[in-house]
Formats: sequence, structure tokens, C-alpha cells
Amino acid sequence: MMTRTAIETAPAPRAPSADDATRVAVSTVIFSLRREPGAERPTVVLPLVTRTRDPFEGMWALPGGWLDASESLDAAASRTLQETTGLAPSYLEQLYAFGEVDRSPTRVVSIVYWALIRPDEVDAVAAPENTAWFEAESCTELAFDHTQIVQYALWRLRNKAGYSRIAHGLLADEFTLAELREVYESILRRRLDPANFRRQAEASGTLIPTDRFRTGSHRPARLYRYDRDLELADRGPLTTSH
Amino acid sequence: MMTRTAIETAPAPRAPSADDATRVAVSTVIFSLRREPGAERPTVVLPLVTRTRDPFEGMWALPGGWLDASESLDAAASRTLQETTGLAPSYLEQLYAFGEVDRSPTRVVSIVYWALIRPDEVDAVAAPENTAWFEAESCTELAFDHTQIVQYALWRLRNKAGYSRIAHGLLADEFTLAELREVYESILRRRLDPANFRRQAEASGTLIPTDRFRTGSHRPARLYRYDRDLELADRGPLTTSH
Repeated sequence: MMTRTAIETAPAPRAPSADDATRVAVSTVIFSLRREPGAERPTVVLPLVTRTRDPFEGMWALPGGWLDASESLDAAASRTLQETTGLAPSYLEQLYAFGEVDRSPTRVVSIVYWALIRPDEVDAVAAPENTAWFEAESCTELAFDHTQIVQYALWRLRNKAGYSRIAHGLLADEFTLAELREVYESILRRRLDPANFRRQAEASGTLIPTDRFRTGSHRPARLYRYDRDLELADRGPLTTSH
Repeated sequence: MMTRTAIETAPAPRAPSADDATRVAVSTVIFSLRREPGAERPTVVLPLVTRTRDPFEGMWALPGGWLDASESLDAAASRTLQETTGLAPSYLEQLYAFGEVDRSPTRVVSIVYWALIRPDEVDAVAAPENTAWFEAESCTELAFDHTQIVQYALWRLRNKAGYSRIAHGLLADEFTLAELREVYESILRRRLDPANFRRQAEASGTLIPTDRFRTGSHRPARLYRYDRDLELADRGPLTTSH
């Protein structure tokens, strides 16, 4: 089975010149939750950056930039996000590689990463002047194919809400079941029955009850935390230690 | 919120020359099942191609090739797979973009696609001389980082087996529950209790019983098929019509 053959399946490709080479970029979709005054529930929001040069100068776009030859895709995603928005989430997950021919005037393949950021972590970072947070649901007229990218990321977020510990990225380390339920309601955009949600959450095997309670104007509610061991196992063989 | 600013976040990058530009390649992982004579159950296999030029000349590698400037990533994956192996699955799904700096002697980002192919579809294609099928579990010493790619794809396959209709890609359109169970046993590499499996499969809501039966040396077994409507809905907003 290890026999070598001399069959060439295709002629050697013409070496690309600098003008027409396909370039590689990275973009990031960072979701958080924000409650508008008087709103029934929080909404999913993300940061966008104003383009300062053509193409699409003046339009809003996802944070991102070019892949540098000396860095991995993961590192490029973290670097460009931090440089353009000041944000530095502990883990960026690869979402999808967008490579339609006409997504950009010159040929660019963009590897998109995403992460969840807690509302308090958003507030802790002073956003640069050309960055602002927008409701993901109502994003339109972004540069390149970024509108489609945001819609795809929202769809993935809503699908994940059904079976993973995704809400962990949007909550504090310890949270009540009501707070957890509100996160799911915000992502799924509908009310969930509290008793059913409690049953499913407790049966999921991913929550660990603590000895602490949230107190205030209501009956004290027990605080829970996620089982971190389960969470790290989820990332499989591409996990880098951190 | 639509105010333009003149802040530039970074100096304009040096235009890449043809020598050091990051190039974009695609690779494909095509899983099928093969039963070795006397084996307890089928094993997961995939096609590899012998490299006919450096780097890694003479070593086995995943089918793939360079992204052409005139085609999308999806199209490049289909084309390079068909050109090197003769295989043409109806749907290639994007798996992951591999972009570590040292995965190749020159800087190459590879977008990896994967698909499942039924055993009878494998047999129907005459494989070119420098293509052969290997057990995925025992793949080592492949070109580039392809060994790691295969391991990652296997991990994804085994995780998917728990909650999706993945076996559909490895079975005929109609199949018995025993045949479906054997596919899962092959992917997960362990025996599954037939009664439990039947209960879960019937409760999944994804199987539609037909009026036909598999007859032979055993008791006739009802044939089932997947609910195609559910399957198409699974691919979300990036689905292209086909």
C-alpha cells in the first residue's frame, strides 16, 4: 500500500503574483447581553468597528485584520480583536471560514472566530472611539459579507443554546437559576417556563450547587456554578492549554 | 452611532510579495465504513493520496489542493477531491481551518472539509492509482499536519454520533435498526444494547418507518428512513440549494 507512483494529477499551478494572491484575514464576533431600559429581556449585542479605509470606508464592520505570516490563526484573531476593541476574552473559538469569491473586491478568505463576553467584562473595557456595540438581530449594511456572518453566528448561538453550557460565557461564575434562565430567554427570544427550566437545568449534570445565595428584594436564591471539568473536555484534541 | 472618525488603528501592512504570501489550500476527510474479514464490526476508513512532489514527496496525505482565485472554498474542496480520488459526495461540510505557523514549510492555511460516503458508493468509484483507503484510527506519519487533522475529524465524528443523524451518510436510504446500530457501534467502537438503542432511535423523532422489510436468513426486519425535512433544516443559513 506504500507504493510510490509518478502520476501527477494536475499541471503545476502558476505561481501567484502579489496582485492576485488570495489573502487571509480573520474576523471576530463577540456576543454579550445588554438590557435596554424598559425592555422585557436583555438582547444579544456585539461590537463593530468603523472602517477607516476603502473598501467600505466609513461603514461598520466586524473587528479583525490580516493574518500575519508569523502568527497562527488563533493568535491573529486574539490580536486583531484586542487592537481594535480592547477586548481580550480568554477563549476564542473558530466559527467558520468564509470564502465566497465576491465577498470582497480583492480575493480574501476570512476565518471568523467568536466568543461570549459577560456584560460586566464589557463595561470594564474602555472602547476605542471607532468601536460601538450593536444589537446583533438588527445588524444590516455592514462591510463585506459581515451582515451574513453575524446572521450565521446568531443562528449558531441559538442552536447551541439547546445543548451546551453556552450561557456560562454570559454569566458570572456563580448565578441563580433565574439568571441562567434569563440568559437562555435572551438568546432564544422567548419565555421559558421556570419550573421546567429548573428541572432541565438540575438534570443536565453540568451545574454544581454552591452554599451561597443571592439575597435582595426577593426570596434568597441559591447560587450555582458550572462544572469546569466538563467544560474543558468539550474542546477536544485542538485544545491548547490555558 | 454612525459618526466617522479618522483614527487608524495600525499602519498599512506591507504588500505581500509572491515569495512570502500565505497561501490557501483545501483538504478533505472522507469517512466510510469497511468490514475487514473476521472483524467484530466495521471500522472507519478514509482515502489518502500519495504526494508526488515535495514537500513530503512519497508520503500519504489527505486529498486536496490549492484554492483557485476563481472558485469558492466549497467548490475548491469538491473539485480537488474529485480530481484526486474520483469521489463526488453530494455535500461537503466545512470542518475546520488549520493555520498553525509551522504546519507546512511555506505558510499555508488549509480549510478542511469532510463528508460521509456509503460503502457501496466507495465501491462504485474506480480509485486512481495513487489513492488508497486506510483505517482512520491507525493513520500515522501523514504529510504536513494531516495526522492531527484526521484525529480531530475522528473526534468530531464520535461526538456527533451522540446527537445527530450522522449515520445517514453511511447507510443506504432505507435501513433496519440493527444496521443503524452497527454504524453507531463502528463509530463509537463499542457494543450498544439493542433494546435501548431501538428505544432511543424510535424516540428520536428522526426516523420514519416504511412498509418494507429486509428479509433473508433472519426474521424480517422493518426498513426505516430518515426524515429529510429535518436534515435540510440542520444546515442553517449557509445552506446552498441542491
